[in-house]
Amino acid sequence: MAKLAVVAFGGNALLRSGQKGTFEEQVANVERTCENLVPLLEQGYQLIIGHGNGPQVGNGLLRHAAGEKDYGLPAQPMDFCGAETQGSIAYLIETALDRVLVRHKLDRKVVSLVTRVEVKADDPMFQNPTKPVGPYYPEAPADGAVYKEDPKGRGWRKVVPSPVPVGIANVDLVGRLAREGYVVVTVGGGGIPVVRQEGALKGVEAVIDKDLASALCAVKTGAQEFYILTDVPKVYVNFRKADERALDVITVAEAKKLLADGQFAEGSMAPKVRAGILFIENGGGQCIITEAGELGNPSCGTRIIK
Amino acid sequence: MAKLAVVAFGGNALLRSGQKGTFEEQVANVERTCENLVPLLEQGYQLIIGHGNGPQVGNGLLRHAAGEKDYGLPAQPMDFCGAETQGSIAYLIETALDRVLVRHKLDRKVVSLVTRVEVKADDPMFQNPTKPVGPYYPEAPADGAVYKEDPKGRGWRKVVPSPVPVGIANVDLVGRLAREGYVVVTVGGGGIPVVRQEGALKGVEAVIDKDLASALCAVKTGAQEFYILTDVPKVYVNFRKADERALDVITVAEAKKLLADGQFAEGSMAPKVRAGILFIENGGGQCIITEAGELGNPSCGTRIIK
Repeated sequence: MAKLAVVAFGGNALLRSGQKGTFEEQVANVERTCENLVPLLEQGYQLIIGHGNGPQVGNGLLRHAAGEKDYGLPAQPMDFCGAETQGSIAYLIETALDRVLVRHKLDRKVVSLVTRVEVKADDPMFQNPTKPVGPYYPEAPADGAVYKEDPKGRGWRKVVPSPVPVGIANVDLVGRLAREGYVVVTVGGGGIPVVRQEGALKGVEAVIDKDLASALCAVKTGAQEFYILTDVPKVYVNFRKADERALDVITVAEAKKLLADGQFAEGSMAPKVRAGILFIENGGGQCIITEAGELGNPSCGTRIIK
Repeated sequence: MAKLAVVAFGGNALLRSGQKGTFEEQVANVERTCENLVPLLEQGYQLIIGHGNGPQVGNGLLRHAAGEKDYGLPAQPMDFCGAETQGSIAYLIETALDRVLVRHKLDRKVVSLVTRVEVKADDPMFQNPTKPVGPYYPEAPADGAVYKEDPKGRGWRKVVPSPVPVGIANVDLVGRLAREGYVVVTVGGGGIPVVRQEGALKGVEAVIDKDLASALCAVKTGAQEFYILTDVPKVYVNFRKADERALDVITVAEAKKLLADGQFAEGSMAPKVRAGILFIENGGGQCIITEAGELGNPSCGTRIIK
């Protein structure tokens, strides 16, 4: 019986810091990441791919600002820019994965859905936007958005909230297609954030954590496994200290204790561990946090279990 | 028995010339266009939506050029920019159509696929790029692309080919989902152009005519009807002359004769008529060229039949 797994790619695995971000670099990065899926594909896994878009949507917002300045093209809001990255990253993943499938003679198809993810309009995060996005301005523009002054003196920057995902458009279809054998790319960048308004969905400027959105996707599709790819092979306690220790298997209770102890950095490992907990507490089998190159190795990564 | 129809939206119906192109304008335009689908939806049509992206990808290329100049972000190629517009336009259509469906109490779902469209690497158009795209440069950049000098003296501009679409990724799935009742958004901007290389698909810089790509989609999904939306209610002979005459129904043979007589302008009505001919010659029922507001009116538009 084939297992269904959701794999969350980091946005940094596709557009790496330290590179210029040329198309050729992105293509090579994405293909390397997709190559790492081969062991899972060869084991017959049904796969759903979620992915981040931090660097990509950051670049998109800058391009929109530059386009307004240089060409008078109105800069579009963040939800629009996020939708753009879903198109471009899905295209890169589809094309790279196609090459990998041909190379390994794997008979699988890839399909990518533009995906809106619902958040609650009364999510408390809307009262407390914290994620800085887009360009720095010498003064805060009077456009109704919230701006904060950069602590390093680079100027003012828009801050947007990071609300919790509560629903995913077409997630039933995503699960069905994955069970049919399609590799399905969805919830790109955590999804395009929308709130329900008079029964329909309306876009909002926000950033949904891509690991949380992928975890929700894993829950809603009934996936057995949820892989969160990062740049270290395992999760550690006392990370980068003399007594650093890699974790092989931890229960949800242990994960919560370590989180409460401040063992995992915010904006880095903490949200991944929380996404893993969400998955397991809602019926998931195991969440594996690891680096892409370890996929398919049965003892890879740190496993969060019930 | 429900009819399956492909409806091709023009890129101009979404981002109108004469407007600034703000997000609010785009949202209103898209919602107005989607509202016009209501008669077809109320008649129980199964729908696939194709759409153009001319103004949108044009803006995208300018934003990429501006981002490179102002922020050092490498400008991405046209296929990447086209993929971006698939994400953003699909998001606008999904969200607008959702509101329309709620307002009219129509129980339908919308799903959007990022869609690559295959062209042949040996398509003769690759030897004769004609479509000017992106910014004007004072001198032709030495980047391997073809540039032509603007006849109005605005500088040098990249020209890309417009090859003929021969295949659509996941088109079988598109047809299946449409028959299940999903409104499926696909082949945005004519599709992301790819060529087959060692069995896999590779992106190329090109523009695929969106009406031709939508026609191919209609053929491959076995659609009975193919609607091409434009800004006039019908196709005319002697257009804008004293003896202008609207066409109600024409056969493929008549359409070919009128094309050969130069009755339809290139870059405007001629490619639409050609797309209609392609559809009918490959088994389609009727192609209707009309304006969006006429949809559902049984005598709307100009009908091309066998």
